[in-house]
Amino acid sequence: MAKDKLFGKHLLCTQDWEVDELIRALELAEDMQKERFSGKYYDVLKMRTYMMFFYNPSVRTRQSFECAATELGGHAQFLEPKSMRLKTKKTAGETVEDAAQVMARYGAGVGIRILEDKIGAYGEGQKLLEDYCKWSPAPIHSMAHDKFHPFQGLADVMGLKKHLKTPDYNFKGKKILQVWGKGALARSWCSVQESILINSRLGMDVCLAYPEGFDLDPEVIALVKANCKANDAEFEILNDVDEAYDDSVDVVYSRNWMTAGAYKGGEFDKPGEIEKSLQHTGWICDGPKMAKTNNALFIHPMPIDRGNEVSDDVASGPRSIVYDVAENRLHVQKAVMALTMGNLP
Amino acid sequence: MAKDKLFGKHLLCTQDWEVDELIRALELAEDMQKERFSGKYYDVLKMRTYMMFFYNPSVRTRQSFECAATELGGHAQFLEPKSMRLKTKKTAGETVEDAAQVMARYGAGVGIRILEDKIGAYGEGQKLLEDYCKWSPAPIHSMAHDKFHPFQGLADVMGLKKHLKTPDYNFKGKKILQVWGKGALARSWCSVQESILINSRLGMDVCLAYPEGFDLDPEVIALVKANCKANDAEFEILNDVDEAYDDSVDVVYSRNWMTAGAYKGGEFDKPGEIEKSLQHTGWICDGPKMAKTNNALFIHPMPIDRGNEVSDDVASGPRSIVYDVAENRLHVQKAVMALTMGNLP
Amino acid sequence: MAKDKLFGKHLLCTQDWEVDELIRALELAEDMQKERFSGKYYDVLKMRTYMMFFYNPSVRTRQSFECAATELGGHAQFLEPKSMRLKTKKTAGETVEDAAQVMARYGAGVGIRILEDKIGAYGEGQKLLEDYCKWSPAPIHSMAHDKFHPFQGLADVMGLKKHLKTPDYNFKGKKILQVWGKGALARSWCSVQESILINSRLGMDVCLAYPEGFDLDPEVIALVKANCKANDAEFEILNDVDEAYDDSVDVVYSRNWMTAGAYKGGEFDKPGEIEKSLQHTGWICDGPKMAKTNNALFIHPMPIDRGNEVSDDVASGPRSIVYDVAENRLHVQKAVMALTMGNLP
Repeated sequence: MAKDKLFGKHLLCTQDWEVDELIRALELAEDMQKERFSGKYYDVLKMRTYMMFFYNPSVRTRQSFECAATELGGHAQFLEPKSMRLKTKKTAGETVEDAAQVMARYGAGVGIRILEDKIGAYGEGQKLLEDYCKWSPAPIHSMAHDKFHPFQGLADVMGLKKHLKTPDYNFKGKKILQVWGKGALARSWCSVQESILINSRLGMDVCLAYPEGFDLDPEVIALVKANCKANDAEFEILNDVDEAYDDSVDVVYSRNWMTAGAYKGGEFDKPGEIEKSLQHTGWICDGPKMAKTNNALFIHPMPIDRGNEVSDDVASGPRSIVYDVAENRLHVQKAVMALTMGNLP
Repeated sequence: MAKDKLFGKHLLCTQDWEVDELIRALELAEDMQKERFSGKYYDVLKMRTYMMFFYNPSVRTRQSFECAATELGGHAQFLEPKSMRLKTKKTAGETVEDAAQVMARYGAGVGIRILEDKIGAYGEGQKLLEDYCKWSPAPIHSMAHDKFHPFQGLADVMGLKKHLKTPDYNFKGKKILQVWGKGALARSWCSVQESILINSRLGMDVCLAYPEGFDLDPEVIALVKANCKANDAEFEILNDVDEAYDDSVDVVYSRNWMTAGAYKGGEFDKPGEIEKSLQHTGWICDGPKMAKTNNALFIHPMPIDRGNEVSDDVASGPRSIVYDVAENRLHVQKAVMALTMGNLP
Repeated sequence: MAKDKLFGKHLLCTQDWEVDELIRALELAEDMQKERFSGKYYDVLKMRTYMMFFYNPSVRTRQSFECAATELGGHAQFLEPKSMRLKTKKTAGETVEDAAQVMARYGAGVGIRILEDKIGAYGEGQKLLEDYCKWSPAPIHSMAHDKFHPFQGLADVMGLKKHLKTPDYNFKGKKILQVWGKGALARSWCSVQESILINSRLGMDVCLAYPEGFDLDPEVIALVKANCKANDAEFEILNDVDEAYDDSVDVVYSRNWMTAGAYKGGEFDKPGEIEKSLQHTGWICDGPKMAKTNNALFIHPMPIDRGNEVSDDVASGPRSIVYDVAENRLHVQKAVMALTMGNLP
């Protein structure tokens, strides 16, 4: 058993890691899927604790991280910061400096989830995570925050490699349509920003389509453009849903997201966002639209708002890879936990 | 290590399993009690995760299921659906179809608890569990729902075999008095319905006694009658508490339960139920009543509302088997988890 | 593997154990720190469950106890009594008699945390824990209650031995200044009362300093005086912060605590306590005060209210041992769990 050279490394966004580091994690994840219950990786986190900080609740993220620690022979603690007396702008309490340094005495690593409705402005979640990274001797992992969702991005591309049947993680010549969907849940930018970053990084052509007013973070868009340029791949933004679907599209990723004006007076305006979102009735991924593509795969980070983001026949159809991608969350998380905080066989 | 032929089987009610399947589980539970810390069963759930969905909180159920997974070498996740963004009549969210299929990618099995106050009408809990069974590739276990409580029923009969000193699970010739008790907690029908089903199935004579107005589910009563008929056993319903206790009674099971009119306008009317319940002041199981029986055992699924359902001297008396039965919850749960989702030695 | 002679022993306060029993636990904790991931103690709680009852939330306590069980090969359940339908003065529910006896059927031991704001008067937490001790066949541990915090006391002296560089746990000739600090969190007496008890028990001179009106429990003070007398050590109480710091002081323990008048009409008056506390602006442990001591160590049970109880330069300074002491919580808890409920190698 030995520590990897990635031991101790934080992961807030896939863009922060080198491509060969991401591929190292992805290939380990594939082997972990194959060897899931063989016992090969059962000592990786033996006696080790993983701290999961859920500022926001979660379905898949909680289940898959806790499951990951168990399968690696360790244990993940489910922690809700609301009961943790942390210092905030409004209340006395413990500093991140103290909390992070003490946690690293107990745990081998820390996952943190903080989304749009637990912050007062876009970017505050990212700042909080950076503060933890500054103070924590143990690796900090984003379990989704306002800006990025690295494990979702890794799970996505693991699923794309399998179902696009590419020999490796070079997606040159493939095109993803990253398309906004209407929805009654106003959602963070994290999954979609992570997706366009990692897909463009691995050589894919990216088409981003959304109604006017739903622009994403300009800094992220600039990074995507740079990624595409470096790979000689194409990047375009469309505001017309019908134009977006055509026979060049190999993958459709449909997802609702909020506007840049979602924060008013330091509060996330969820009702206002839902109202704005539901006006764009044509922005649903359905059978007729999918029929115009190159027999595209359908991918989604879940939970799926069926009937809004996507129709049932597409979500449950033969080209949907959503459950495989959801399962991949487990495998990529195990891989990154093993590399950054465990002992490898 | 090998999978049992019961692998993958759901358990919502003991009536859904064959008698020999129940006995298989009960005999395994007895061996698991004997070998509790010997290590014989420590690899049964190695690396495996059990998902516990608590729509309702719980004492014994949470403790005993989580403990069961630990003793089998696995881990149980404590999940509260309130934080899970599931779709309901009132809110957007994830469908059971999606939630169940993804959970089965992470976990080996799923336990669900949903009781009277988390639903809008009797039977809705049963429908929800059937929906999970429909979609889940992994076994679904009821950890108590509005209609049934299969693990309580199994724990009960495991305790009865030991303390009635019968050679096996054939209870022919023994009689249980299943008697309503007043109480300041308005309780579900699940434990008592499970009890009369499994006891009648195993050959016992059943006397059900309750004040007028506290009828149970007619479909369940019909099943109990059929069970008794098949076993040539007796079944009667009494509405007089004094008549119920006599020297033919070998076991007294005292328990408060709600009326059939407990739901008003889609809400569980707890205060109204408590008010109705507390009027029946004579319906307490106490020493003088127990003295009229055949030195009957006292059994109760807990938590006990002492001074209402039963007097202290009976609950803590020499014929009370309540703690043994509570412990049996652990053993029968381990047995069913092992059979339906584990690897057996 | 064998059970220790301390097997089954409760721990509500270090004063309840003999000094040689405490030293036995502390020396085991030191070895557990040294052998943390060697596997030497990995079978101590194999297949065993530890029940953690959190009437009050916590940071370090939750993390360190759950981590302790994991490192000993067992599992700790995180239980919130609010969801447990326990009987209270106001509500029907389960008695401690029943809850404690059933828990011991599932778990090997029980930790309970109940602090000032979850009770109606000082001393009620202690009474509740004594009630659990009365009924529980499994050992009961205080994870901090209104009166004492035994694991904090043990962690403190483990840190003092290391950093005072004493050969053993005889602190004769060393002096601790236990000084009140202003703060915006009104805090329980538990940590400070435990500290003066165990420090005086191990031979240290104790100076207790606080503003008028912040007297501690007279029964505890009487015990401390008796401890000091037995060890021929000194005990004094001062109400002047400037007088408290001088060159005889080897350790400074700064901490906010509530007044004896904190309860009004059965409620903890937190706002009133914070207001009273913040008036004493001079009662902060800072650089100039520390400069008057014998190069004293700084110790604190955390969470630290920086800028109130202590200045940043002291809390993060070279003589601060707060993180080491926080880590010791893990080691002493593992040791006591192993001795009272585990199998030792």
